[in-house]
Amino acid sequence: MSTGFELLATDGAARRGRLATAHGTVETPAFMPVGTAATVKAMTPDAVRATGAEIVLGNTYHLMLRPGAERIGRLGGLHRFMGWNGPILTDSGGFQVMSLSALRKIDENGVTFRSHLDGSAHAVTPERSIAIQHLLDADVTMAFDECTPFPATEDAAAASMRLSMRWAGRSREAFRDRPGYGLFGIVQGSTYRDLRAESAAALRAIGFDGYAIGGLAVGEGQAAMFETVGYTAPMLPPDRPRYLMGVGRPEDILGAVCRGVDMFDCVMPTRSGRTAQGFTRRGTVNMRNARHAEDPRPLDAACACPACRNHSRAYLHHLVKSNEILGAMLLTWHNIQYYQDLMAGLRDAIVAGRLDAHATELERGWASGDIPAGETG
Amino acid sequence: MSTGFELLATDGAARRGRLATAHGTVETPAFMPVGTAATVKAMTPDAVRATGAEIVLGNTYHLMLRPGAERIGRLGGLHRFMGWNGPILTDSGGFQVMSLSALRKIDENGVTFRSHLDGSAHAVTPERSIAIQHLLDADVTMAFDECTPFPATEDAAAASMRLSMRWAGRSREAFRDRPGYGLFGIVQGSTYRDLRAESAAALRAIGFDGYAIGGLAVGEGQAAMFETVGYTAPMLPPDRPRYLMGVGRPEDILGAVCRGVDMFDCVMPTRSGRTAQGFTRRGTVNMRNARHAEDPRPLDAACACPACRNHSRAYLHHLVKSNEILGAMLLTWHNIQYYQDLMAGLRDAIVAGRLDAHATELERGWASGDIPAGETG
Repeated sequence: MSTGFELLATDGAARRGRLATAHGTVETPAFMPVGTAATVKAMTPDAVRATGAEIVLGNTYHLMLRPGAERIGRLGGLHRFMGWNGPILTDSGGFQVMSLSALRKIDENGVTFRSHLDGSAHAVTPERSIAIQHLLDADVTMAFDECTPFPATEDAAAASMRLSMRWAGRSREAFRDRPGYGLFGIVQGSTYRDLRAESAAALRAIGFDGYAIGGLAVGEGQAAMFETVGYTAPMLPPDRPRYLMGVGRPEDILGAVCRGVDMFDCVMPTRSGRTAQGFTRRGTVNMRNARHAEDPRPLDAACACPACRNHSRAYLHHLVKSNEILGAMLLTWHNIQYYQDLMAGLRDAIVAGRLDAHATELERGWASGDIPAGETG
Repeated sequence: MSTGFELLATDGAARRGRLATAHGTVETPAFMPVGTAATVKAMTPDAVRATGAEIVLGNTYHLMLRPGAERIGRLGGLHRFMGWNGPILTDSGGFQVMSLSALRKIDENGVTFRSHLDGSAHAVTPERSIAIQHLLDADVTMAFDECTPFPATEDAAAASMRLSMRWAGRSREAFRDRPGYGLFGIVQGSTYRDLRAESAAALRAIGFDGYAIGGLAVGEGQAAMFETVGYTAPMLPPDRPRYLMGVGRPEDILGAVCRGVDMFDCVMPTRSGRTAQGFTRRGTVNMRNARHAEDPRPLDAACACPACRNHSRAYLHHLVKSNEILGAMLLTWHNIQYYQDLMAGLRDAIVAGRLDAHATELERGWASGDIPAGETG
């Protein structure tokens, strides 16, 4: 029953694992490209798969509003709808209801709000969130929670976290257990260690197939995030996957993997691909910059994606300057490839027991900066 | 020397041929996807190739303004710049200077104008147009001409055509002949048969590697276009390829192939792909229409493109409604695939000597209309 998780190796706190779902397995640590509106923006499913990505994330809030969860259900679920036959994790809608919708009202029962698309009225409760995720046929369903705003007083963070814990219980009740399908709980408690401990204990008592750390990457900064992840991860059952929601930059992912996190999602590689930012082994590069205009080199010589294999920086720069769709397509592909390569490197390093050395190499590369045209590294 | 052209079969006036260029051969009749700004919009070069397209078109006007012809030359030419290693035909810039630029002034020497991008001043003469196309390394270079506006009085059309013929001579002089590289002349003369005859004779006297019919698809209507093509094609040397510029819809291409045209280009499949129009064997389909919202069928069941192979109309409709880049990507891919399939079918029909019957089948399909969801054809 449920999703499976196998711990294959550890290196310090870092873990090399394998998540088994109804639609296939996921090697962890894993990065999940975000497919908000049933598409990883500017990528075909074939292209996503070609980067090595094994699981994508869908957004309950966006999909319930358009095209609608019942419609996707009638069309055979999100996998068939978007043409992605691998595992899918869906969020619960809680975070985006709070960040995107209008006139939202939260009470013990759930959240009422108006759509940012057309002003239509909607309600999401834990039961409705789980029902939507069942309609989407998510391999991994997330418990419905409130993402506690940052900063929050300890009293406010406690009240918010305890509401999420009651909703976690209702989510568990509403979830229909089936082989290959799992439900993850979400630890809240802001940056308060006692609240995180209380939340983790509450979730463990309910029992979940995986445990997410929520309420981070919301403005607290990397140091506070690492500190919170560092003490929260050990509060979670070692035999279940751990998912740090909405994280992050490559350096954030590295730090969280070193602290025992297994799964990540973030819009950064896709969104950056549409705003001319390329991630490389020597840090991020702004392809809009005029210094690339006659640079015949690839964005990242070590990368095997089509943008780097077939095209020059000069061409990518031209596409960006000309607002050509192909610019967004190629840079998005590259960034997703970079993130997948990053995760593959971390997995290998954990198995080899050399994560510390690998982390130092990665950090040195990012810090070294891009090599100017005409020079050699 | 120059490009080669082999006539493989005929069926009535229609011709099945093969164009040989420095970067490969092109089976004709052929449709050339338009790669205006060094990209077939929303398509990777791999995807363009996967549709069966063998040659693409580049626009001298756009490329001279951004990123600049000298820059592309320094980067190794347009093939390397855009990552397309097959044949490329470039237009002369004449048409788009007149339709897109500002403050243009035309005289015997050429055209001066200001860029629609930044207002910068530019001049194009026949010599400069050819030099630009050499910098781009075009396999097929087009003579510099004035696309006579429509409608034009016979006097105005004659004056414009004779200017283009003088420019054709200068283009020929400026062209540097090399193996695999060809120069095409462009017949003008609006819808006046005597002027077309005079123009064709002038070009034949100069001698070109191929002959284009210009000044059509500019508002004269399909009947006048077919009439003009019908009497102009026989005025051209049978042993050279014939190219009808800027045409067109599938039914326009069919009619022109039947009248002896070998090559076509048009923005229609790519532009339509960005405005939710899909070409099918049963006519065009507007994917924005709400009737597709729960339609699980592919856009065109007979099509092997990724949009039709992997996705439903419901999904394409959702992408269009959500303004997702993937919607433009998939519909563009489909439309280019449709055009390439159309050309392959025409080539096969000519060889089989059954073009008339094939034309009737195509026209019946287009006229039959899309099958509503829930019904079977």
